[in-house]
Amino acid sequence: MEDDNSIFVGEKPFMNYVTGVVIQFTTKDAKEVIVRARGKFISRAVDVVEVVRNRFLKDQVEVKDISISSEEFQNKEGKDVRVSTIDIVLGKV
Amino acid sequence: MEDDNSIFVGEKPFMNYVTGVVIQFTTKDAKEVIVRARGKFISRAVDVVEVVRNRFLKDQVEVKDISISSEEFQNKEGKDVRVSTIDIVLGKV
Repeated sequence: MEDDNSIFVGEKPFMNYVTGVVIQFTTKDAKEVIVRARGKFISRAVDVVEVVRNRFLKDQVEVKDISISSEEFQNKEGKDVRVSTIDIVLGKV
Repeated sequence: MEDDNSIFVGEKPFMNYVTGVVIQFTTKDAKEVIVRARGKFISRAVDVVEVVRNRFLKDQVEVKDISISSEEFQNKEGKDVRVSTIDIVLGKV
């Protein structure tokens, strides 16, 4: 599930994601933006949200909801693998 | 804020934390356990919760609340540093 209002955090430079969220709220006038990540990038997604919320859009956006889940899949060797995911919903105050 | 029902996830072996949460709910009969972490260990805290919830205490515990925040402090060089934190509240179903 990927849509215009989702920012999927991975290994690109940190500020790419921060800017991506800010642009959604400003230029694109989004009411909500979902910051999403899997595995080790979950920590980074939380950092992105905290920097947006405390610095770039201070007093303008807030965390509306946070959910965590697991995705299960088979890796190249056919072994079952589980990875954690996070969805953080940011909304205008 | 550290109390008996908090498990602070860091760099010890992964299963230590999983076992810690399970013991709180079983041997110590806790109603709620808070899994907490800072910085890069946030991803790991989510993994701990997902493994407890989906495997060891499946259908017995659920995520009641998740909150994220930031801690600010000065490092050894006197520079202001920010670190993200997460608190995940697990409760009996």
